[in-house]
Amino acid sequence: MTDPLSANPGFFLRLSALWRDIAGGRGTGAMPPLSPGLDDDDMGVVRQQLNACLEGKGGVVSAHARAASLGRAYLSLNEEGRIRFLGILAREFSTDHQAVIAAARALIEASSGGDTGAILAAETELGRTLTAPRRILLTQFNALPEGVKFLVDLRGELLTHIKTHPELRPLERDLRDLLTAWFDVGFLDLERITWESSASFLEKIITYEAVHAIQSWDDLKNRLDHDRRLYAFVHPRMPHEPLIFVEVALVNGISGTIGDLLDLEAPLLDPAQADTAIFYSISNAQSGLAGISFGNFLIKRVVETLRREFPGLKTFSTLSPIPGFRRWLDGVFAEGDIGPMSSAERKALRAVDDRGAKGALKRLIETDGWLTEEGGEEAVKGPLMRLRARYLAVERRLGSGEGVERAYDPVAHFHLTNGARVERINWRGDLSANGLRQSMGMMVNYLYKLDEIEKNHEAYQGNAVAAVSGTVKTLLKA
Amino acid sequence: MTDPLSANPGFFLRLSALWRDIAGGRGTGAMPPLSPGLDDDDMGVVRQQLNACLEGKGGVVSAHARAASLGRAYLSLNEEGRIRFLGILAREFSTDHQAVIAAARALIEASSGGDTGAILAAETELGRTLTAPRRILLTQFNALPEGVKFLVDLRGELLTHIKTHPELRPLERDLRDLLTAWFDVGFLDLERITWESSASFLEKIITYEAVHAIQSWDDLKNRLDHDRRLYAFVHPRMPHEPLIFVEVALVNGISGTIGDLLDLEAPLLDPAQADTAIFYSISNAQSGLAGISFGNFLIKRVVETLRREFPGLKTFSTLSPIPGFRRWLDGVFAEGDIGPMSSAERKALRAVDDRGAKGALKRLIETDGWLTEEGGEEAVKGPLMRLRARYLAVERRLGSGEGVERAYDPVAHFHLTNGARVERINWRGDLSANGLRQSMGMMVNYLYKLDEIEKNHEAYQGNAVAAVSGTVKTLLKA
Amino acid sequence: MTDPLSANPGFFLRLSALWRDIAGGRGTGAMPPLSPGLDDDDMGVVRQQLNACLEGKGGVVSAHARAASLGRAYLSLNEEGRIRFLGILAREFSTDHQAVIAAARALIEASSGGDTGAILAAETELGRTLTAPRRILLTQFNALPEGVKFLVDLRGELLTHIKTHPELRPLERDLRDLLTAWFDVGFLDLERITWESSASFLEKIITYEAVHAIQSWDDLKNRLDHDRRLYAFVHPRMPHEPLIFVEVALVNGISGTIGDLLDLEAPLLDPAQADTAIFYSISNAQSGLAGISFGNFLIKRVVETLRREFPGLKTFSTLSPIPGFRRWLDGVFAEGDIGPMSSAERKALRAVDDRGAKGALKRLIETDGWLTEEGGEEAVKGPLMRLRARYLAVERRLGSGEGVERAYDPVAHFHLTNGARVERINWRGDLSANGLRQSMGMMVNYLYKLDEIEKNHEAYQGNAVAAVSGTVKTLLKA
Amino acid sequence: MTDPLSANPGFFLRLSALWRDIAGGRGTGAMPPLSPGLDDDDMGVVRQQLNACLEGKGGVVSAHARAASLGRAYLSLNEEGRIRFLGILAREFSTDHQAVIAAARALIEASSGGDTGAILAAETELGRTLTAPRRILLTQFNALPEGVKFLVDLRGELLTHIKTHPELRPLERDLRDLLTAWFDVGFLDLERITWESSASFLEKIITYEAVHAIQSWDDLKNRLDHDRRLYAFVHPRMPHEPLIFVEVALVNGISGTIGDLLDLEAPLLDPAQADTAIFYSISNAQSGLAGISFGNFLIKRVVETLRREFPGLKTFSTLSPIPGFRRWLDGVFAEGDIGPMSSAERKALRAVDDRGAKGALKRLIETDGWLTEEGGEEAVKGPLMRLRARYLAVERRLGSGEGVERAYDPVAHFHLTNGARVERINWRGDLSANGLRQSMGMMVNYLYKLDEIEKNHEAYQGNAVAAVSGTVKTLLKA
Repeated sequence: MTDPLSANPGFFLRLSALWRDIAGGRGTGAMPPLSPGLDDDDMGVVRQQLNACLEGKGGVVSAHARAASLGRAYLSLNEEGRIRFLGILAREFSTDHQAVIAAARALIEASSGGDTGAILAAETELGRTLTAPRRILLTQFNALPEGVKFLVDLRGELLTHIKTHPELRPLERDLRDLLTAWFDVGFLDLERITWESSASFLEKIITYEAVHAIQSWDDLKNRLDHDRRLYAFVHPRMPHEPLIFVEVALVNGISGTIGDLLDLEAPLLDPAQADTAIFYSISNAQSGLAGISFGNFLIKRVVETLRREFPGLKTFSTLSPIPGFRRWLDGVFAEGDIGPMSSAERKALRAVDDRGAKGALKRLIETDGWLTEEGGEEAVKGPLMRLRARYLAVERRLGSGEGVERAYDPVAHFHLTNGARVERINWRGDLSANGLRQSMGMMVNYLYKLDEIEKNHEAYQGNAVAAVSGTVKTLLKA
Repeated sequence: MTDPLSANPGFFLRLSALWRDIAGGRGTGAMPPLSPGLDDDDMGVVRQQLNACLEGKGGVVSAHARAASLGRAYLSLNEEGRIRFLGILAREFSTDHQAVIAAARALIEASSGGDTGAILAAETELGRTLTAPRRILLTQFNALPEGVKFLVDLRGELLTHIKTHPELRPLERDLRDLLTAWFDVGFLDLERITWESSASFLEKIITYEAVHAIQSWDDLKNRLDHDRRLYAFVHPRMPHEPLIFVEVALVNGISGTIGDLLDLEAPLLDPAQADTAIFYSISNAQSGLAGISFGNFLIKRVVETLRREFPGLKTFSTLSPIPGFRRWLDGVFAEGDIGPMSSAERKALRAVDDRGAKGALKRLIETDGWLTEEGGEEAVKGPLMRLRARYLAVERRLGSGEGVERAYDPVAHFHLTNGARVERINWRGDLSANGLRQSMGMMVNYLYKLDEIEKNHEAYQGNAVAAVSGTVKTLLKA
Repeated sequence: MTDPLSANPGFFLRLSALWRDIAGGRGTGAMPPLSPGLDDDDMGVVRQQLNACLEGKGGVVSAHARAASLGRAYLSLNEEGRIRFLGILAREFSTDHQAVIAAARALIEASSGGDTGAILAAETELGRTLTAPRRILLTQFNALPEGVKFLVDLRGELLTHIKTHPELRPLERDLRDLLTAWFDVGFLDLERITWESSASFLEKIITYEAVHAIQSWDDLKNRLDHDRRLYAFVHPRMPHEPLIFVEVALVNGISGTIGDLLDLEAPLLDPAQADTAIFYSISNAQSGLAGISFGNFLIKRVVETLRREFPGLKTFSTLSPIPGFRRWLDGVFAEGDIGPMSSAERKALRAVDDRGAKGALKRLIETDGWLTEEGGEEAVKGPLMRLRARYLAVERRLGSGEGVERAYDPVAHFHLTNGARVERINWRGDLSANGLRQSMGMMVNYLYKLDEIEKNHEAYQGNAVAAVSGTVKTLLKA
Repeated sequence: MTDPLSANPGFFLRLSALWRDIAGGRGTGAMPPLSPGLDDDDMGVVRQQLNACLEGKGGVVSAHARAASLGRAYLSLNEEGRIRFLGILAREFSTDHQAVIAAARALIEASSGGDTGAILAAETELGRTLTAPRRILLTQFNALPEGVKFLVDLRGELLTHIKTHPELRPLERDLRDLLTAWFDVGFLDLERITWESSASFLEKIITYEAVHAIQSWDDLKNRLDHDRRLYAFVHPRMPHEPLIFVEVALVNGISGTIGDLLDLEAPLLDPAQADTAIFYSISNAQSGLAGISFGNFLIKRVVETLRREFPGLKTFSTLSPIPGFRRWLDGVFAEGDIGPMSSAERKALRAVDDRGAKGALKRLIETDGWLTEEGGEEAVKGPLMRLRARYLAVERRLGSGEGVERAYDPVAHFHLTNGARVERINWRGDLSANGLRQSMGMMVNYLYKLDEIEKNHEAYQGNAVAAVSGTVKTLLKA
């Protein structure tokens, strides 16, 4: 999403109107119209307004009027203008490095003196200098109507810019710190979303669904039926926006095929009779909250909620895609070891393509021949299931900047961190174009076994060891 | 209030029950019962649990169970035990001073290198070391039901202890920082409280009213009548608690006598006919939020709300007590100058008591003789009104720790900071025992003149110059 | 209540304001002010407006404006004026007797012809003529804000007048028919009332409580505590008014003493541990709904609600007063048979007063000597308990106008009709002044045994036979 | 709609589940499964259950269980079975004709006696006998969850059957009387429906829209945009169902073309700037409430609501279809007089088709040639506009069973009854297939002029005289 704010014109309009009323009638807060690309004169105007905001002239209400003006001014800019605007904040409203250094020196000196009170005071002062003035500016948006959503979307924009404009990184980081504090999971409400929910909210669910696209309102209605549940986390200051949501099917036995769950014609099940809850889709809705995690809470709170409503539920499992498998597999073929095969497997592969088992396997996969050529599917199934198990449960890479290993697959990493185990690999689990492209149609179940979650979590957290079921263990040993 | 938590047994019970359920069924989170005074062994148990909480073993859900256990443990202690508990947090979960010093040195070194990336990284690291681990512990309560109220009351307790236990100050400061972020005015809801509000909430209004005590439910009902308004700020995570509230009477002309407003038998006025809104009582409700200010927002938002509802309102004024006048006057008599008096005044005073005007004035005030002796009231009125004006508008003292002057009277300081002006001094404004004791029955109106607020605010903020009406100016000149 | 409308000045004021707005701006609907006593000229004005209303000139909106004018006119009258106003409605807007007779004749004729269609048409026409025009007038109030409450209170007034003004009876009956249709139990909401309910609603509970007066807001709060429940029926068009409400205590074992339940100092019980629900007070709140019964529904729906919330509840019982006992007893002494006494009882009575057992009993009761004289209480207890059982379970009188027998005691009649049984008589159950006066301090439990309710109901409904427990049976046999 | 209940399977399922719980656990209320076509044995079972219900054995709760059983039994039948079921109610639970005759005779006799009390009693008794027992049965459904919707849909079914089964008419009439009382406009809530409303409710709007079909959720969203309003009447016991709803566009000047209003790409207007509200669609949603009118209230309450929100609105007008015009026109051509034409018109017609002006007009209309042939549209426009004006404003027919004249066009009748006037005829107002077929693309505005409504209403009500604008008057005179 290049521009979260512009991508939502209804919200954009509402915001402009709300803020016009706040900024409007007050002489001191008014700003002249700016050129869309923010030319140098306009940059001066913005700079001046930012300073006026910070100085807090005219009391808090004027500060709000000024913040609203600044917000509207920002919204009126094009991409180039916005980047220049953000650049002012990043460069000119940063911490005062000289002051920080001075405070650091003062602390070192105080600590050599040994007077506890003086040390504490020096630490407090050092902390003060480390807080960039722009944090105070950003905080003021919080008090504006829809200001929290504005900041979330602003960070969404920043995240699309920081690769090309690394000078914006400190600003993005300040915003992340603020949002992390405000979006503490303790402040979030877990809401059940149903067909009785507002169409406006449901429309956002359709937009934000990231795993199995919602094709129509009928498709959505099916996912909200009596044997389904959809839960979302919502923030009290952004009540019209889901933050993250999960879709659950109440079934008997662990589902292996996503098509069955999404089939509009499938018969309704009495949810009181279900023994299993399948989490078949989890979507983050706010790009501006990337890296501020509440997904693990969501699953755990939903599990608790479901257990209370349906005491008959015994099994909690996902039905998950394997997004990075195909790409990883290409690498394995290019330079790695695909592992041993049984003679029966070799024979079956050679029966389809006589160039040798590994070559046959490679070709069948690369050309999608396994889907169309006779005997292709049976020939590739065994090796692929094993590779799949290895990909999920064994393959590791270094996590970004942490120096610890984590699962190669991001979905696997998410659930393993939560304490789930790799339960079952489902051949022909997702025959959609997307499913075939990502993982040759395979899906996986991650099982949340309540009395093992903690143990699994610690084993994975500590040593990146994935918990697996007996079935998967067999695949790995083979 | 010695102990906000214990002072509210209903809340205490509810809290214990809520947290028992969370702490309850999980082996890892359980704590053994503690001795009320927290003996040394128990301190070890608490320490261990605090460390387990911080290490986050077993994922977030376990962390919450542990936090709930800790909270319940704290609630089970007596005052001595609680102070020892808080002492552990203050001393042992503080910043690591060595690490801070090291990070400070690293920053100084990096800054001499001149590599911007390295400087930024060093600043970030320094910021991290300055964050005490106990902040993370405290934050976890936020996610517990009623956890925010618990922390507010916990700070209330800390504030009663820090004079005698200064080592708790840094802990109190961390808590204040957290609460300041969470209770940003942008997160607060302004609610109109009426006789349709819940009895439970209204009971708290009765309890928290700090200016003119509410005598009965009938008294409260009168303050919620058709020609009255009561507004409160409420936080979404503490929806059952007012934070601060203001009582307003809709009248014609500026009221000078509190007794008229509180009279249960006074006739109802059609609020649509009123031209004046009188703010006659503002009370902070949470001792644990002391110093975290939202009072100025409250008045401004209420003014806006009232103007929208009643376009006929032209004047917004307080009717306020003068809490410190009598004490200040004692000082003036003891060592100061009571200012010149007219010959008529001197004569009137001597007519009551022939020892000389100043001595007569002093005696009449000290003995309350001005109320009972013939001619007393007329004799003291002139000088007292002038002293009163001087007390409010001229007298200054240094604000705590800021090095700037502020009004001697705290109520005056509050409204002058907000941009109000001293409008009128009301002789016989409050003849209750309390009113007579504090300020010899005088009250004052602070006027919020919308187009002067900003100017007034800046004059006071900058140079501690109070805006005053013509009438008051005359008193000051006399 | 002489005048339900005037008895509630707040409602009266609100009504007048609401209706002024509706009646107000429309020339056609306006009425001139009337003399409070409604003189003859004014009667002409009212008559004319009533006719205009009926003719429906100007469409439905004008009709509403006219109805609102009429309502305000009525409210402006004194008692005499109101009775004259109602008299117009009763006499002049009644059924057209000639038309009824003509329609009756037409039906008789049609039925001799044997044409089904013609008979049906004649019946329909007859039904039409039997509907008094005033029913249409009354119905129009239903569409006014608070109009339903107005009609309910209007019937309350009518009920106080019909003894002295029997000509108003047909009007009262039409109103009863309308209200019976509107207040069908299917339209009522069962609401749990708590300390979180609005003060305004709770104030009405205090006012309407008819069994054990609520002494203060603290008393009320105690009745809404964690181990208590208060449920009310509410009508969607009168949402701010309880229709009937019941107070329940959750306890262990059947309570026999009302004082224990109302004791503000009694310890709280964990309601999840309770095995018994005691219905200790049921009050009708609207005098204008007399004879329109929903009390039996209330108890049954509350029982269902409680069983769902607290599966541990096994016993559902009332703790009820015996309002007519003392009066009945006077009659028995005057002319009836107090039944045999054991020799021990005779001896005990004679020990207190040597004039003979029956005489002693009579005197001890009439003078309240049993309470104060030594040995008095023990001496009267046995005979009184037996008389009490007889009074409740055996004594019968003819129900008004139905020709069937019913329990002498109205409370007993209510619960026996519902299918309860007389479970236990409690000596010293209610030592309040009222309790002593009505029933010498005795109270009774009526037990709702779920699997016997239907059987009990039918036995009582058919033959006025009361179901009784073994204990009571023993008392009756003795 | 053949079968409103079956047409809504979700509601059907929910109903069955709700009623199973009520009917379920009680021995006495249970009914055996019935054959779908209700054979003779089953009819006996139903008859028995109906009688048990009426006798009220076992108190009210059992009666409800029995009613729920009966309802579920009815739902389990096919169409034939349902008709047989309803037949039992219609024939066997009707008024007792003999009793009615006897009561009629008794009244005649009493009236000759002249004793007012006796006459009143006889009238009351006669009224009692005229009430069919099935009314009591039907009323019991009111107390069941969703029972009101069940009865509404039941009447919907009856209305589809009574033509072929006239014996069901009295049953339908009883149901209509009950529903008329319950759905009195005073009990209805006016709700604004927005894109924030529940998807479930909005889905019903899509289904029930009867004038301009809603093509998609995007189409619906457009009709709920900032410059649109949609209001519905809702009954508190059927909160999830609209009864009737109206769609309004806020525009400048009176709209003449429906296509402009429904255009998804049309720019948004600031509603505060609008001077005109266009009611462009009114749909009844419940076939079971046919003939129970609240449409006129809806428009008037919406007008009041809009005026309050937007003081700038000066004009309230419809943009309405002319559903019966084409059919009426066929009749005019077949046997009537199409009125005089100007020589220019005659010439234009002959230029397209030389068979003579009237013949040309007829052919151009019948073949839709006016749309395609050169000069066709200009040629027909003048005469058609005049015919249209005549059709709306002059043409009359006898209303059903009332002996009074009413407008030929049902939509015209509706708005003229409400006091609107025929304001403007819009050529090319609706070029949809449906619009062309019904009225050759013309639409009409009915104007609600607030200070003329009453006068217009009376003129139409009394003498079927339609109010018309000057423009339309000119067309009529021409």
